[in-house]
Amino acid sequence: MNGTPNTTTSTRYTRGWAKLQEIDGAAGERVVASLADIAPDFAKWLIEFPFGDIYSRPQLDLKSREIGVVAALTALGNAAPQLKVHIHGALNVGCTRDEVVEIIMQMAVYAGFPAALNGLFAAKEVFAERGLSAQQLAD
Amino acid sequence: MNGTPNTTTSTRYTRGWAKLQEIDGAAGERVVASLADIAPDFAKWLIEFPFGDIYSRPQLDLKSREIGVVAALTALGNAAPQLKVHIHGALNVGCTRDEVVEIIMQMAVYAGFPAALNGLFAAKEVFAERGLSAQQLAD
Amino acid sequence: MNGTPNTTTSTRYTRGWAKLQEIDGAAGERVVASLADIAPDFAKWLIEFPFGDIYSRPQLDLKSREIGVVAALTALGNAAPQLKVHIHGALNVGCTRDEVVEIIMQMAVYAGFPAALNGLFAAKEVFAERGLSAQQLAD
Amino acid sequence: MNGTPNTTTSTRYTRGWAKLQEIDGAAGERVVASLADIAPDFAKWLIEFPFGDIYSRPQLDLKSREIGVVAALTALGNAAPQLKVHIHGALNVGCTRDEVVEIIMQMAVYAGFPAALNGLFAAKEVFAERGLSAQQLAD
Amino acid sequence: MNGTPNTTTSTRYTRGWAKLQEIDGAAGERVVASLADIAPDFAKWLIEFPFGDIYSRPQLDLKSREIGVVAALTALGNAAPQLKVHIHGALNVGCTRDEVVEIIMQMAVYAGFPAALNGLFAAKEVFAERGLSAQQLAD
Amino acid sequence: MNGTPNTTTSTRYTRGWAKLQEIDGAAGERVVASLADIAPDFAKWLIEFPFGDIYSRPQLDLKSREIGVVAALTALGNAAPQLKVHIHGALNVGCTRDEVVEIIMQMAVYAGFPAALNGLFAAKEVFAERGLSAQQLAD
Repeated sequence: MNGTPNTTTSTRYTRGWAKLQEIDGAAGERVVASLADIAPDFAKWLIEFPFGDIYSRPQLDLKSREIGVVAALTALGNAAPQLKVHIHGALNVGCTRDEVVEIIMQMAVYAGFPAALNGLFAAKEVFAERGLSAQQLAD
Repeated sequence: MNGTPNTTTSTRYTRGWAKLQEIDGAAGERVVASLADIAPDFAKWLIEFPFGDIYSRPQLDLKSREIGVVAALTALGNAAPQLKVHIHGALNVGCTRDEVVEIIMQMAVYAGFPAALNGLFAAKEVFAERGLSAQQLAD
Repeated sequence: MNGTPNTTTSTRYTRGWAKLQEIDGAAGERVVASLADIAPDFAKWLIEFPFGDIYSRPQLDLKSREIGVVAALTALGNAAPQLKVHIHGALNVGCTRDEVVEIIMQMAVYAGFPAALNGLFAAKEVFAERGLSAQQLAD
Repeated sequence: MNGTPNTTTSTRYTRGWAKLQEIDGAAGERVVASLADIAPDFAKWLIEFPFGDIYSRPQLDLKSREIGVVAALTALGNAAPQLKVHIHGALNVGCTRDEVVEIIMQMAVYAGFPAALNGLFAAKEVFAERGLSAQQLAD
Repeated sequence: MNGTPNTTTSTRYTRGWAKLQEIDGAAGERVVASLADIAPDFAKWLIEFPFGDIYSRPQLDLKSREIGVVAALTALGNAAPQLKVHIHGALNVGCTRDEVVEIIMQMAVYAGFPAALNGLFAAKEVFAERGLSAQQLAD
Repeated sequence: MNGTPNTTTSTRYTRGWAKLQEIDGAAGERVVASLADIAPDFAKWLIEFPFGDIYSRPQLDLKSREIGVVAALTALGNAAPQLKVHIHGALNVGCTRDEVVEIIMQMAVYAGFPAALNGLFAAKEVFAERGLSAQQLAD
């Protein structure tokens, strides 16, 4: 990482950091901190490319973007910490708890019941972290 | 498959078939036909469970469901025919071409550039099948 | 989930629940309980579709079904809790410990040594839970 | 590959080759031939390790081994040529067509409907290659 | 994509394009062309981020980078076109044919024999495209 | 496992064990010990095939082999214990800490940012186990 990034790099970084704040600022700060002593450039790229270049584009709303990420990470099934970050993110940008549960359940069709089950357990942890009271989803 | 399904099975099947028509009726008919001589029960389940049980629920709109599926199948990268069906489906339920391209590109972040590239090439085939004229996406 | 499921749904559910008892009743009850406050419908589907619709069919014996599941979950390598459930299931429906170990080891050929190793460690935990004394497999 | 393999290597190779003949001799010969000008050692290992060391063990019958492989390759979804070889193999060592179809369909539960669908289409090709007449599986 | 990119974007793009030329210029041009009418921004990102930001760093030589990519894409097994591009790339930056074959074969240990076999067949196609005469690898 | 292995098996085992010592002897001993009461044959194969047959070949240096393995296991994302073993191995056979970090970061391009992030966290644990002081990688 360059200690004195040029102006335009700062633009991508600044735009990405602002976008990350909208989605999950606390998680973003934790990731950047955790990378500080091993791969600070990776933290920079993470903010500049996904959040500065992609999420900041107007072609798709943030809620749809987070639905896609929750779906994909549930289906892949091998990135539990990042799935939890994006379940928080989905709720932060306007998804309801029911919508998050619904898209995870739907992944049973495309990646199998174990992937969907493990996604639901991740959601349960996130809901508990946010202090959401348990309530029946569908009666 | 039972030649004389009971009434309630017919309800799930009927509901699923109607939902599948909304998403991609032609693809649904091709899949059912292609399974007829090898696994007709699988065709029945495919209509009853994903489309009759899940897609028919009101908790999430069809457009969001298709965004999730396009994202997941792009990320998994091992089900090209089904990805194409759901790119058609996404367009059929209200996604614009730009939104489809956008969610596929975003998967570069979660599953890598090759997965996103192969997803874009699938989208290109689908757009050609639908006779969409090529035009610059973002200038 | 519907509090008063219609008769035919009950048939699939009842048949699935009975089949799940044959395979791993305790695990089934744990999963249903763990989903109660987040996605009770998913628990219903899990019993109705895999166990009510598929496992209940006469075309393949339960032992062969569980061998297939242990093989697949070992190979996928991203669903450790479900792999443990099905190692229990395989033993419950008639597989010997040696047969379970053998099918897991064979997955080294199709999914690599790490997947097989992690499958063996899951089996070791399951055997310990069941109080099976350690003994050399092959001398 | 060593032109003059030592005696014991020959033992593993001979045992593996014989076992491969039981499962799918023609496919084995095709693979060995296709590797001759690029990686002949890999062909040797393929015969010695999977077939000489593992498949030759008495702890699990060949039919169960092939059910496990068809399940795993269907679930992984990224090795279509090898899945077809092992569907042939499963039929060669005693599985019925119905059993093969059944284990592939069951993978919808563990790896999603697209993986199972693509597995069924592979089975359909194999059945056609073997000249099996189409007939309804379950009526 | 912006028709008049700002100066610094041009720097990352220019650096990335030069690096891509070292690895596989012809493939890079084909990918950019194939994306022109569907996702030109994605082509820009592909050059700027992987090749401008990562491959251009001095911390690891290009040969080691390409060995890592050939290994990873062989192991993932779901991106055949990109694997072929990087087998070309590995040869272009100094790997011998034997080294490429060796790293692909080694992936049998980490991702299974089918993944390695399909990687070898990709290498065989690449070698043929480059007009390399077949010769025994190891005698 | 045969209590009295024939001479040539011993040769492969001896050669593999020596090679494993070069890469990560302590990890090798832990794995063999952990398999002793469940699958001792698997430990034998692990030493004979990957380490005795493959890693011992002169066609590729050990450092390049370990770079390939760290890349592949980072990309697969479902074998964290084995990834840590091979990060140790890469450092043991001559990779610098920077080179290990670099190849893991590069996997963001081929398998996504979550896979690379989880790889970096594994590396961080390994560096801590080895008592490497934290220092900025690139300023």
